Amino acid sequence: MKKLDKILDVFRGRNNVKLLDYSSDEDHNRTVVTLVGEPAALKVAMVEAIGKAVELIDLISHEGQHPRMGAVDVVPFIPIKNVTVEEADMLAKEVAKEASELYGLPFFLYEKSATAPHRENLANIRKGQFEGMAEKMKDEKWKPDFGPDTIHPTAGVTAIGARMPLVAFNVNLSTNNLEIASKIAKQVRHINGGFRYVKALGIELEDRGIVQVSMNLTDYTKTSIYRVFETIKMEAQRYGVNVVGSEIVGLVPLQAIVDSADYYLRLENFNIDQVLETRL
Amino acid sequence: MKKLDKILDVFRGRNNVKLLDYSSDEDHNRTVVTLVGEPAALKVAMVEAIGKAVELIDLISHEGQHPRMGAVDVVPFIPIKNVTVEEADMLAKEVAKEASELYGLPFFLYEKSATAPHRENLANIRKGQFEGMAEKMKDEKWKPDFGPDTIHPTAGVTAIGARMPLVAFNVNLSTNNLEIASKIAKQVRHINGGFRYVKALGIELEDRGIVQVSMNLTDYTKTSIYRVFETIKMEAQRYGVNVVGSEIVGLVPLQAIVDSADYYLRLENFNIDQVLETRL
Repeated sequence: MKKLDKILDVFRGRNNVKLLDYSSDEDHNRTVVTLVGEPAALKVAMVEAIGKAVELIDLISHEGQHPRMGAVDVVPFIPIKNVTVEEADMLAKEVAKEASELYGLPFFLYEKSATAPHRENLANIRKGQFEGMAEKMKDEKWKPDFGPDTIHPTAGVTAIGARMPLVAFNVNLSTNNLEIASKIAKQVRHINGGFRYVKALGIELEDRGIVQVSMNLTDYTKTSIYRVFETIKMEAQRYGVNVVGSEIVGLVPLQAIVDSADYYLRLENFNIDQVLETRL
Repeated sequence: MKKLDKILDVFRGRNNVKLLDYSSDEDHNRTVVTLVGEPAALKVAMVEAIGKAVELIDLISHEGQHPRMGAVDVVPFIPIKNVTVEEADMLAKEVAKEASELYGLPFFLYEKSATAPHRENLANIRKGQFEGMAEKMKDEKWKPDFGPDTIHPTAGVTAIGARMPLVAFNVNLSTNNLEIASKIAKQVRHINGGFRYVKALGIELEDRGIVQVSMNLTDYTKTSIYRVFETIKMEAQRYGVNVVGSEIVGLVPLQAIVDSADYYLRLENFNIDQVLETRL
């Protein structure tokens, strides 16, 4: 049996935990596993799966194109339904505490669970990767939140924490001028003075001969899809350019769609529980 | 045990059938029961429940404010998820056939299952009610689709058929002039030349000092919420009146909300399966 199957088997046939999806990338030499479940059941399963990965994966001989720092690189807990971000944060901390004690693995809390601003962003934490992490962690700034003060010899370190579901939202413009998409991307993204929860980039869609503002909305409850969309429409007018369409890539929480319908239809007192399918 | 409980018990503890809701109105002396389920399981349960109601309810001694023509007055089959209106129609006909043979009860097919235009509308079929139905059915125009050519002596007749879920959608205007709401209601409703699947009425919201276009959308897949909303906005301008808000009363299918978000955000290739909650 392959290593991956042994890890996935931890999640199979459990009550209140469902293995929703997993996908491996050969070039990246990395697997993303998606689970849904009740907090208590997820906790038990995650701690056990981390142990299995620590046992089976040796970072010393690991190669891949995607940056990584641990056998279990990152464990995000995403509140979906009947659960708050605070509860997801608590769950992340419980898993980190227990797994660090059982396996001698250090954990960094990141995103909504981060204990300092410089530790919110995963890319910041992971900089240096597995090979540079022992040196990096000598700095007091990079002391882990749980577990030993240096890396696990073969499993490295793990980032864990609560984060909101990402919404991948792209807006297509009626021009092939990349500069316009790039300028608008800067106007809406957080780093340049735009919305707090928007990451954005201008890109070309060569086959269609148009450009796109390509975005990640990192907290749709605070920065709504419709607000970003209307702002891009407004900025595009400045260049005599129209919005020809938009796309949501992958999954989107129901609330994000409801919020947009709610805004445009000027709904009063509409609640997500009124969506028939939530009753089934 | 009350009669109602005996009927509801038919639906309880079954596989693939769920009693979602029931509500009784004393003045109406009428109960509305909402079930969801797999077609095959629903069929068996419905046939049995119709038998129980025919056995327990005697229309000869029945009084109530709501018009009625049968112990089981009307049985709508509403396609919700992974099922077409054609399949709902087939199910309605199977239940009608079997129940008519078992209980000697006549059935009229109505709405999407109707066999003639004058039999689409439930109010048309029910006109004359239980007391007048034996006389009405002597007319060839009112020969039932299944069962005997005259009423069941105590259980009357039943309407059955497939219909789309109703969306109760109201739009509030920045005026207390009822005439304006009534005019706009006429402009959007089918009967006066408006949208095919809109029933509308102008009403006063006295406590708020405004008026409302109060609507039923009888097929949201053909007449979208956003199209009706934008048309009302446009017509209101004619009177210098603004749309101050709208409301959806009760349940609404996810697709109806997605369709509105899709329109306003100009989404390309968005599919309802991208809504995260549909995966859980």
